[in-house]
Amino acid sequence: MFKIFQTKNKSRRGQLVTAHGTIETPCFMPIATKGAVKTLSSKDMEALGAQILLSNTYHLMLRPGMEAMAKLGGLHAFMNWNHPILTDSGGYQVFSLSRLNKISEDGVVFQSHLDGSRMHLTPELSMQMQKAIGSDIRMQFDDVAAGDSSYERYEDAMERSLRWAKRCKEHFVGSCDDALSPGQRTIAVVPSDKVSSQLFGIVQGGTHEDLRQRSAEGLVEIGFDGYAIGGLSVGELKEDCYRFTEFTTRFLPQDKPRYFMGGGMPEEIVYYVSVGVDMFDCVIPTRNARHGTLFVWNQDPLTIDFAQAAHDVFAPTFYTTKRLTNEAFQFDSGPVDSRCSCELCAHYGAAYLRHLFATQELLAYRLATIHNLTFYLTLMRSLRSWLVA
Amino acid sequence: MFKIFQTKNKSRRGQLVTAHGTIETPCFMPIATKGAVKTLSSKDMEALGAQILLSNTYHLMLRPGMEAMAKLGGLHAFMNWNHPILTDSGGYQVFSLSRLNKISEDGVVFQSHLDGSRMHLTPELSMQMQKAIGSDIRMQFDDVAAGDSSYERYEDAMERSLRWAKRCKEHFVGSCDDALSPGQRTIAVVPSDKVSSQLFGIVQGGTHEDLRQRSAEGLVEIGFDGYAIGGLSVGELKEDCYRFTEFTTRFLPQDKPRYFMGGGMPEEIVYYVSVGVDMFDCVIPTRNARHGTLFVWNQDPLTIDFAQAAHDVFAPTFYTTKRLTNEAFQFDSGPVDSRCSCELCAHYGAAYLRHLFATQELLAYRLATIHNLTFYLTLMRSLRSWLVA
Repeated sequence: MFKIFQTKNKSRRGQLVTAHGTIETPCFMPIATKGAVKTLSSKDMEALGAQILLSNTYHLMLRPGMEAMAKLGGLHAFMNWNHPILTDSGGYQVFSLSRLNKISEDGVVFQSHLDGSRMHLTPELSMQMQKAIGSDIRMQFDDVAAGDSSYERYEDAMERSLRWAKRCKEHFVGSCDDALSPGQRTIAVVPSDKVSSQLFGIVQGGTHEDLRQRSAEGLVEIGFDGYAIGGLSVGELKEDCYRFTEFTTRFLPQDKPRYFMGGGMPEEIVYYVSVGVDMFDCVIPTRNARHGTLFVWNQDPLTIDFAQAAHDVFAPTFYTTKRLTNEAFQFDSGPVDSRCSCELCAHYGAAYLRHLFATQELLAYRLATIHNLTFYLTLMRSLRSWLVA
Repeated sequence: MFKIFQTKNKSRRGQLVTAHGTIETPCFMPIATKGAVKTLSSKDMEALGAQILLSNTYHLMLRPGMEAMAKLGGLHAFMNWNHPILTDSGGYQVFSLSRLNKISEDGVVFQSHLDGSRMHLTPELSMQMQKAIGSDIRMQFDDVAAGDSSYERYEDAMERSLRWAKRCKEHFVGSCDDALSPGQRTIAVVPSDKVSSQLFGIVQGGTHEDLRQRSAEGLVEIGFDGYAIGGLSVGELKEDCYRFTEFTTRFLPQDKPRYFMGGGMPEEIVYYVSVGVDMFDCVIPTRNARHGTLFVWNQDPLTIDFAQAAHDVFAPTFYTTKRLTNEAFQFDSGPVDSRCSCELCAHYGAAYLRHLFATQELLAYRLATIHNLTFYLTLMRSLRSWLVA
């Protein structure tokens, strides 16, 4: 169930109810690719105030595998995270990571990027795997056209994704009739599958207005619990990414959550919120952290005029980034961000973090990740405050 | 200042007062080689209840370097650890890690293992560097003979170490007259150098009783705040290691702390405590953790008869080890150690940790390190309880 209780122009402030708790939107979903946000535990994620995590079906399918997932009672129990989880369909990784053998109407045949073993994935299998994982929000399986595809390939992929969306919906509805056995859930008790899970459709169509519109309208006709904007933030011009996101939202129902997949930088999220997007996931805060790039506020985040920030999307002023691997920080005993109270900024100086990066101490990656996730989660909290102010 | 307030046969229960707090002995010192216990922060170490950390002068000399150490106000401020720190002299790493060019009466000339740059280290320089680090307990610079040296080499190294011990003592006493400037200590305020630091001598002599005795007696004649047993746990027979540790303690004063350098497995520590050793450091808990080997109690640690355990040192029964990389744990949702309440055992199952190791998630190394350090620190607490019971 999704409820919007505040709008400001097109920006929306809402609540998404799941069996593992209510998510305040707009929200950011840290990425627990293989069942862990890199360097952090689920207890760390609770301490950071994350509301929901995203995990990748493709990676979990390879390791620990779906047999382990089912035997161990699903991902919530496995990683001891008793809050919402969203899973992707596996499609994106099949198209981007594995050696793809064949796309057919049935699904895709591919080789594992780990050991080359031959596997296949269909809309139905994706639904079954996401059910074994026990995620609260599940994504339809889609045909993902590469970022530089021809109009014909985009159209073909979009049409096939619509047909696969229908098969996902049918299989998802069917699978809800048999609740998961709670007997295996030895760590955390979660409600039955029947109550909890939701299915989101994914709008495709590349950078073509007609394809985007047909995709969105087709999905709405099938009917989903939420709608994702897919196939953007994949190398196209930033202008196009902004324009097509705004364009796509025109064809999505007001009363369902909208999820922009895989983006982005802080100013991009601010822009997407300004055109009515509710949910985000991105590797930027965690990946940048591990590479030593940290986000730093230029002002108290509660004082940001987000309408102005969305307007200034090409020249953001509310934050900057620092490269903590830089020699300039060698003697800097001050905090990386004096406006931040995360474990890093509250207790350690920039020089110490630089030293940890220089000596490749694993603590560097952890402290930097905690900082950048704190930044992103604080950004979302500030956006939500601004929306009700 | 060291005070023994309980003995049980030769075992000693004491308190070592430093400017950064009182250490209850027998104690274990986790190793913060380069200013961080691998994977953990100083706040984590506080949460684990570590009383004192050991850090390596050689590594800190290379990075961040002594200029940074001095400018940033010493290691306590740098890593935000407001509790005792012990530093080694740099000698052991010079002899084991670097390309050694020349030992002379003055000191050693060597090449950095990082960039091959030519450096030298003398007793006086070691004292100066440990002063820049600002450690509470400092070790004399010694000539470390390799584990398979001839009697002549052991004798020569032992005699030189005695002469260097005298130079360290003289330089240490001298340096205490000028207190460190507290102006640079921007994070933690620590008392002046004059009050805090202590100097330990190191008994050498390999596996030769006469050399060990001459070394210990020579050091006691010079007079130190504590005495370390060096040059053992370096590949010799376990029997020899136990025998020469016991033998060495006979020549050490009762009213000064004794520190066994670089050992060992839990049962070895129990044995050394039984012959009157007070302080320990070892990479085993942290290194084994990162390789997936975890210590598991076979009984409530507070019920261990440590006199019996010291007797059974060749066949310990109070604990076992588990290889968490083993496939056997694939479906094991139970905790690694049901008697442990560390972050790992309280919240995650063995199958999850195995998955984190299999997927090389950095969280694996952190959770395993927290567990093994909890094991070692609990062992020391249990030993101390047993000593006053």
